[in-house]
Amino acid sequence: MKSIILAGGSGSRLWPLSRDEYPKQLLSFDEKESLLQKTFNRLCTFSKPSEIVTITNVKHYQNIKLQLNKIDKGNVVIGEPLGKNTAPAIASTLEYFRQNSADDDIVLIVPSDHLIKNIEDFNKTVEQGKILAGLGYVVTFGIKPRYPETGYGYIKIDKSLTTGFKVEKFVEKPDIETAKKYLASGEYFWNGGIFMGKISTFLSEFKKYATDTYNNLSELDFSSDSKIKYSVYEKMPSISIDYAVMEKSDKIALVELLSDWNDLGSWQSIYNVKDKDENGNVITGKVVTDNVKNSLIYSQKEVVAVSGLENIILVETEDAIMACKMDESQSVKKLYEKLKAIESDTTKLHKTVFRPWGYYTCMNQGEGYLTKTICVLPKQKLSVQSHNHRSEHWVVLEGEALVLLDGKEYNIKSGESIDIPIQAKHSLQNPYDKELKILEVQKGNYISEDDIIRYEDCYGRA
Amino acid sequence: MKSIILAGGSGSRLWPLSRDEYPKQLLSFDEKESLLQKTFNRLCTFSKPSEIVTITNVKHYQNIKLQLNKIDKGNVVIGEPLGKNTAPAIASTLEYFRQNSADDDIVLIVPSDHLIKNIEDFNKTVEQGKILAGLGYVVTFGIKPRYPETGYGYIKIDKSLTTGFKVEKFVEKPDIETAKKYLASGEYFWNGGIFMGKISTFLSEFKKYATDTYNNLSELDFSSDSKIKYSVYEKMPSISIDYAVMEKSDKIALVELLSDWNDLGSWQSIYNVKDKDENGNVITGKVVTDNVKNSLIYSQKEVVAVSGLENIILVETEDAIMACKMDESQSVKKLYEKLKAIESDTTKLHKTVFRPWGYYTCMNQGEGYLTKTICVLPKQKLSVQSHNHRSEHWVVLEGEALVLLDGKEYNIKSGESIDIPIQAKHSLQNPYDKELKILEVQKGNYISEDDIIRYEDCYGRA
Repeated sequence: MKSIILAGGSGSRLWPLSRDEYPKQLLSFDEKESLLQKTFNRLCTFSKPSEIVTITNVKHYQNIKLQLNKIDKGNVVIGEPLGKNTAPAIASTLEYFRQNSADDDIVLIVPSDHLIKNIEDFNKTVEQGKILAGLGYVVTFGIKPRYPETGYGYIKIDKSLTTGFKVEKFVEKPDIETAKKYLASGEYFWNGGIFMGKISTFLSEFKKYATDTYNNLSELDFSSDSKIKYSVYEKMPSISIDYAVMEKSDKIALVELLSDWNDLGSWQSIYNVKDKDENGNVITGKVVTDNVKNSLIYSQKEVVAVSGLENIILVETEDAIMACKMDESQSVKKLYEKLKAIESDTTKLHKTVFRPWGYYTCMNQGEGYLTKTICVLPKQKLSVQSHNHRSEHWVVLEGEALVLLDGKEYNIKSGESIDIPIQAKHSLQNPYDKELKILEVQKGNYISEDDIIRYEDCYGRA
Repeated sequence: MKSIILAGGSGSRLWPLSRDEYPKQLLSFDEKESLLQKTFNRLCTFSKPSEIVTITNVKHYQNIKLQLNKIDKGNVVIGEPLGKNTAPAIASTLEYFRQNSADDDIVLIVPSDHLIKNIEDFNKTVEQGKILAGLGYVVTFGIKPRYPETGYGYIKIDKSLTTGFKVEKFVEKPDIETAKKYLASGEYFWNGGIFMGKISTFLSEFKKYATDTYNNLSELDFSSDSKIKYSVYEKMPSISIDYAVMEKSDKIALVELLSDWNDLGSWQSIYNVKDKDENGNVITGKVVTDNVKNSLIYSQKEVVAVSGLENIILVETEDAIMACKMDESQSVKKLYEKLKAIESDTTKLHKTVFRPWGYYTCMNQGEGYLTKTICVLPKQKLSVQSHNHRSEHWVVLEGEALVLLDGKEYNIKSGESIDIPIQAKHSLQNPYDKELKILEVQKGNYISEDDIIRYEDCYGRA
């Protein structure tokens, strides 16, 4: 079986933990694997790593590759040059499979940012889905509504099949009264955005109902590169698979998702899935409370002290703090939009930025300088590069650095330092077994990440 | 006229802005002068700077001196070797005056951390107080109650004098019912802790009612040093002037304080004295709000985003975040005590620590290293010092440094760096007109502020 992971989302409702360039699917909510990694692991039961294809915006490509490589380097990631919603993403990935394997295989399509804990029951559902997919159905996984949620789309079932149900229609997010009726009727399921079917079935439905997407697929060429060309992708419409295919096709069947399911679409949903203490609180990090109830308090770095509050969410990160009411945690999106409008960096990046070779944290910035701490993971190296507008000064804090500077090699030990002049060709490398931590002082009139010329890069960024 | 400023308080209820080693009186709540500086300026109307004596715990001596020197270098600060409440502090300062001037002078005694905006009306009150002080009264300034406050002591007046009132008694913090009766009666004032009288009057009352304090005064010797000896001070009882003298003396008169008055005893009282926006909010720093009302949101450094909350206080500092209910802001003291119990550094110091020569901020700490940014103010220098357990590496970020290293002088320009080996005698100096900013990397097995040997220091710390 083949699998597709849809990993294009941004998750602004989980700001400040989630950022434009490091969104929800890359985050871990249990200090272990990220949601993406959990998703990938879940699919490994059914598909070989090389048959699990993750599709994402090209700006997340490196970070996604980095996380999946930790599980299995055989993974495949397709980079979208721009966001086009789920229909073009799914169609393009199906085209990838058509070019690389038999199109009669069954494919399981899942979002990258849902939390499913009960793997056994999820697997049972997949087995049921396989039966229907083999019969030529496009199968959707429906979640039995637990309460009248107004934030999800619903699916109305028509009649029972031997396995699962025939689908009558997909319906959009209802108002609360309608949601209550749906819940009472027993004929509606939440649309979880998980689909299964034969590659050939999906493609024929795309051909029938989403011609403007389908007709561009033949121009895609994955033979040398897994990044989709802008010139092809921009011609496709921005449309969801639900609108493009599901609502139109008469071949849709539904199986009930037997496992637990949470889309972690808000801070409240994070609170809901976490274990609570005796006061109903979910506390993470350096937190002190007094008379606090039914709240989520998250500290990433600094001391957070809270007194006398109930039903609130308070999240501290290195460069942004967010507080809101528990049952209005969807409003975080509004704060995020406000910050985006004033071009706050906190919507884009974390203070700590992950790179294929490790990560860096900006410490402080002033007139003509910027200081960073840089961690280079064992056996990793930064590209051979130069800067036109800044010099750099490196002090080794932990480990040992191998520095390439204008064709010469220098070993810089803990406590030692080296100067990198403007325009000098250089590379910071860690060929050793221990993490390398350095402090970098950048000096110059123009200090920006875009002042970089890459000559060689082992991560394909040159 | 002489003046005494009582500056020993810690102000834990204003944590995390206020810290043990940098308390409330040193803070500014309007980005201008600190409360101490405002207090000093207020007294300059009546007393020469050299006749305004500030008494404080010796741990605040340098910071208080630093702030007052910015107004007038003629100021006098007395350092207490330990905290002994207001009676010993006042008696010792009176003894200082007796040793240095005529004891028939009038002295005005004020706390260092009260906010008074209407100086003209304050001055009128002092003029009234002078009349009574001249007649041999110990004068207290009473604040007309505006509401039934249970957090203050009250003073009951007896009968009118030509100016002010005779005092019948001092009463302790009442319960709410009693406070309401006091308010309705019109015979009670809040005890603002501001006193006036002739030095001789005060001393004779101390002699009469506070013998255990008074009898030690003759051992104080301010002829060479303004720091009180531990051996003398430890013999005095820890007691307030109210208990020791005011409640017992029959020479107490009261004048009504005509000006505004706020003791800034809680975050709510800070909120009360500040201008509000159209939503009733007091917003400081990088703050974004949506549907927030009647709240105080303070950001010192990072982005703070708040949605859907009312009547809350949220304070962000470099290393601690505090959130509480507006009308329970006294509870901050409890959070502070909890943090103190787990020995959180955030109760003691700010991340940015002020020194006579400037300030430093700890950036990050790891295995065998600590990094700091250090700012040396123009014309200032750090002591000539050495460290037994760490080397240092300095990179100049802004300005230019004069570095003394083992008897030689080095000029280190912006972008340049220098190594200070273990045990080397060194001094970082800024003889120039521009601020000097450097980045310091400390390396060693034992890194602590106490690993310092000072050979020369222009601030008397050697």
